[in-house]
Amino acid sequence: MSEHSYRLTIACPDRVGIVAAVSGFLSQHQGWIGEANHHADHESGWFFMRHEIRADSLPFDVEGFRHAFAPIAEEFDMQWQITDSQVKKRVVLMVSREAHCLSDLIYRWSSQDLDYELVCVISNHSDLKHYADWYQVPFHHVPVPKADKQAAFDEVMTRVEEYEADLVVLARYMQIIPPAMCQQYAGRIINIHHSFLPSFAGARPYHQAFERGVKLVGATCHYVTEELDAGPIIEQDVLRVRHNDSSEQMVRLGRDVEKTVLARGLRYHLEDRVLIHGNKTVVFA
Amino acid sequence: MSEHSYRLTIACPDRVGIVAAVSGFLSQHQGWIGEANHHADHESGWFFMRHEIRADSLPFDVEGFRHAFAPIAEEFDMQWQITDSQVKKRVVLMVSREAHCLSDLIYRWSSQDLDYELVCVISNHSDLKHYADWYQVPFHHVPVPKADKQAAFDEVMTRVEEYEADLVVLARYMQIIPPAMCQQYAGRIINIHHSFLPSFAGARPYHQAFERGVKLVGATCHYVTEELDAGPIIEQDVLRVRHNDSSEQMVRLGRDVEKTVLARGLRYHLEDRVLIHGNKTVVFA
Amino acid sequence: MSEHSYRLTIACPDRVGIVAAVSGFLSQHQGWIGEANHHADHESGWFFMRHEIRADSLPFDVEGFRHAFAPIAEEFDMQWQITDSQVKKRVVLMVSREAHCLSDLIYRWSSQDLDYELVCVISNHSDLKHYADWYQVPFHHVPVPKADKQAAFDEVMTRVEEYEADLVVLARYMQIIPPAMCQQYAGRIINIHHSFLPSFAGARPYHQAFERGVKLVGATCHYVTEELDAGPIIEQDVLRVRHNDSSEQMVRLGRDVEKTVLARGLRYHLEDRVLIHGNKTVVFA
Amino acid sequence: MSEHSYRLTIACPDRVGIVAAVSGFLSQHQGWIGEANHHADHESGWFFMRHEIRADSLPFDVEGFRHAFAPIAEEFDMQWQITDSQVKKRVVLMVSREAHCLSDLIYRWSSQDLDYELVCVISNHSDLKHYADWYQVPFHHVPVPKADKQAAFDEVMTRVEEYEADLVVLARYMQIIPPAMCQQYAGRIINIHHSFLPSFAGARPYHQAFERGVKLVGATCHYVTEELDAGPIIEQDVLRVRHNDSSEQMVRLGRDVEKTVLARGLRYHLEDRVLIHGNKTVVFA
Repeated sequence: MSEHSYRLTIACPDRVGIVAAVSGFLSQHQGWIGEANHHADHESGWFFMRHEIRADSLPFDVEGFRHAFAPIAEEFDMQWQITDSQVKKRVVLMVSREAHCLSDLIYRWSSQDLDYELVCVISNHSDLKHYADWYQVPFHHVPVPKADKQAAFDEVMTRVEEYEADLVVLARYMQIIPPAMCQQYAGRIINIHHSFLPSFAGARPYHQAFERGVKLVGATCHYVTEELDAGPIIEQDVLRVRHNDSSEQMVRLGRDVEKTVLARGLRYHLEDRVLIHGNKTVVFA
Repeated sequence: MSEHSYRLTIACPDRVGIVAAVSGFLSQHQGWIGEANHHADHESGWFFMRHEIRADSLPFDVEGFRHAFAPIAEEFDMQWQITDSQVKKRVVLMVSREAHCLSDLIYRWSSQDLDYELVCVISNHSDLKHYADWYQVPFHHVPVPKADKQAAFDEVMTRVEEYEADLVVLARYMQIIPPAMCQQYAGRIINIHHSFLPSFAGARPYHQAFERGVKLVGATCHYVTEELDAGPIIEQDVLRVRHNDSSEQMVRLGRDVEKTVLARGLRYHLEDRVLIHGNKTVVFA
Repeated sequence: MSEHSYRLTIACPDRVGIVAAVSGFLSQHQGWIGEANHHADHESGWFFMRHEIRADSLPFDVEGFRHAFAPIAEEFDMQWQITDSQVKKRVVLMVSREAHCLSDLIYRWSSQDLDYELVCVISNHSDLKHYADWYQVPFHHVPVPKADKQAAFDEVMTRVEEYEADLVVLARYMQIIPPAMCQQYAGRIINIHHSFLPSFAGARPYHQAFERGVKLVGATCHYVTEELDAGPIIEQDVLRVRHNDSSEQMVRLGRDVEKTVLARGLRYHLEDRVLIHGNKTVVFA
Repeated sequence: MSEHSYRLTIACPDRVGIVAAVSGFLSQHQGWIGEANHHADHESGWFFMRHEIRADSLPFDVEGFRHAFAPIAEEFDMQWQITDSQVKKRVVLMVSREAHCLSDLIYRWSSQDLDYELVCVISNHSDLKHYADWYQVPFHHVPVPKADKQAAFDEVMTRVEEYEADLVVLARYMQIIPPAMCQQYAGRIINIHHSFLPSFAGARPYHQAFERGVKLVGATCHYVTEELDAGPIIEQDVLRVRHNDSSEQMVRLGRDVEKTVLARGLRYHLEDRVLIHGNKTVVFA
């Protein structure tokens, strides 16, 4: 895990020779492949790949890699990126009043179970400030008044810019992100929805689930897009409920699956394992 | 399993003294309780219970039980029934062209894994006739022409009546049951839907799931009501899929969860473990 | 959940009339049953039951209940107890150096997800002291030198007595509890073992699992007895691993299932849902 | 699935250039890669890969491929094979008296859910002959008398040779395969064990599980080796049981997980997705 590596992710139209070109390039530069994943999507005709290459096996740094690899990328019309495993992604956590996801993510950050830079916590309430305080993480209380949500999200976006954040994680934030922000940070806002989407989108999903009498409830980690709860799904999971679980108990039990699913989805993103294509994801887990 | 028992199921408005009255009655008649389940639904204010009582411990048969228990049932406004574990339920299987559920249910019937009387198979196609033939089960081919579905379902209902069936199981039947039949057999038609309802109701759910990019697909066993795919849910389960599972592979993989969920839901019904209340079920599994 | 109730748990040899006697007693005193569970173990011939009764529906407190119920308990040779849902169990958490279970349990305590009194944390190391400090929970560093483990556990037991603890939770404590302590607190020490017992008992279970090449790893919450990792099991769960998960990754991934299984097992115990019988448990979950 | 492809599987000591050499070879011959999987085992220093290549994109057949690829294989010390997806593997099913796995595998064969040639069924009893008869599959009753097991297995091996079988599947065969046969068909005998190995190896695993009071039971699909129930594991799964599940009910419930796990493991093998390395497997599922 802690090995220093470069992560090369590629998406391009499928054709013969892509893997040969990429692996030929790596081999020519003595690149040692620690992990490699491929996916040919036969319906869209696209090809996806991810390589993890030992940094010390290559004769160049990330910038040098970018320069050397550019001709191949151009030849195959690749959408691609190369990242350095030692450069931690800068993450803003956004929360409301419920602490379970924040508590879990902050623990995983402090214990290095998840490898990221927690730059600040933003909330529309001040209830959870003490968590940030104890871990000495900046906390910004940005109320979202019904009358002027725009100003609130302008402030949020200013904060995100100031902190040079790579990613915003909505850890049960409970506010709808305005379209402008969704567009600006496309593929860079992750949400946890407390249902097994597309079932029970919108508000109070456990109460909807209780009313419908389902036998399993779930959680969905997805990228945020303008359409509410409809962005590309990264990870999902479920847990069994029974007739004697009230909607309150579902809320309580559901917290465990919410935080687990969010942590898994976030891990995939942080490790550059998620490639977004249209409204779907390729996850090289 | 094979022990001879009576199964007493009760639903009534909740109040003090129900359990005492029922267990007092059983105790007074030396009834040996093999299994007992209770559920107090705090939202609706209803109470549900199920007892399995050794038949040989009681001084009367099912009819005698009905007579003796009636005053208690009346006192507490009970919806109730008593069944004899040795009287097998008479089941009609309805299928279309896909064999996996039929094959599974017919195997479970012939091997006595599920304890029911398979009275006949009805299909709108003749493709699966050989399964019924080999097991020497009557097979009725009842085509459902678009122009005259009514006549088809009239014939189906006639068959169901002639066979004195207790239950109709739609084992991937793929036709919409008309309202009249839904009403006449309320609580007596079980369907397997090949999605995790309420997601992807209607046609081609795996293709819908593929389009949406979900990470789990599922199946739902439910009672059939007039509203399509919206009846009381008995059992559900899911299986994990990945970006490299095409919709065709989901169809293939999904068959395993479909047949397992249908078999579980059917078992609960056959053992009188399911109590319908409004659009939900209490399942004393 | 927060409703004030009494929890009556009973284990006794099975015979006709137990339920009638208990429910008759409750009914006679206007006791409102919120939840009831029964289990007749046909192999051992024992009967188990648990009732949750609304406290305000009864004319007596727990002491009064004990007095009034004693004759019935005697008549049926019952092992039984009655507890008050508002009297929180006093719990000692014992940890070593790994924080994930402590962090999870302390969060669940502080957020009242789990309803218990955290009286102190005891550890053979001081690494995790800051968790206790921040939550203002007493922390006792009790080193366990190889040369004199007896003295260490004497101190532990003294602490447990001083705090009048009802329960000791080994939240990845990593030390073997000596027989004397196991005996003294039989049924009152809960451990989380990081494997799917009985597979991989003892040390380094993930490494054992990796060596064996299993496709699922798990965790087991159980009561501690003199025989290592062999006490009555309360709860277990698993997660899927693949050929590319190293033993280090199994360790990391396994933490999530460990803390979830421990929290579930602890919840069952705290809510008096676990009845120990021989080396097995009845869990009225 | 039904697309005509060649499957190239490779295991060799890890070093720089393997992927480049293989993909360069494929690219040079215009080979279209439909699916590719890699695994670098950092502990053993071995590298594993599997490619599925469209047959019609290559200028040679399997023999031609073998010839052309041989120099690369030699250069990298590869253990490798190339198979043709249209050449079905020839499979012998061995059963005893329990029908659930046979019934499932024979259904999957006849419905082409699993793509193999069922050459015959061999059993030490004649109970299940009618299954084979109905599907017109040769059935051989080879009793295994305690006094002369050697003769019985000599006959079994003769049959396996006569049918030119590629694989033997023990579908609840319940007899221990003698060492000579294990050696001769190393990597070509698949067994389903009715427990979550390494727990409860040997006889009557559900009864062992019941005695131990576990909360989950499972099944394991593995290659057969001389050491009983200790060969390389291909697939495992579990299902939840409760205190009220008797050992007989575990047996009944377990059948579903047994047949599902066996079918999954067999599918992986038939699709050349399993690479055995030492006592473990790499499964490119």
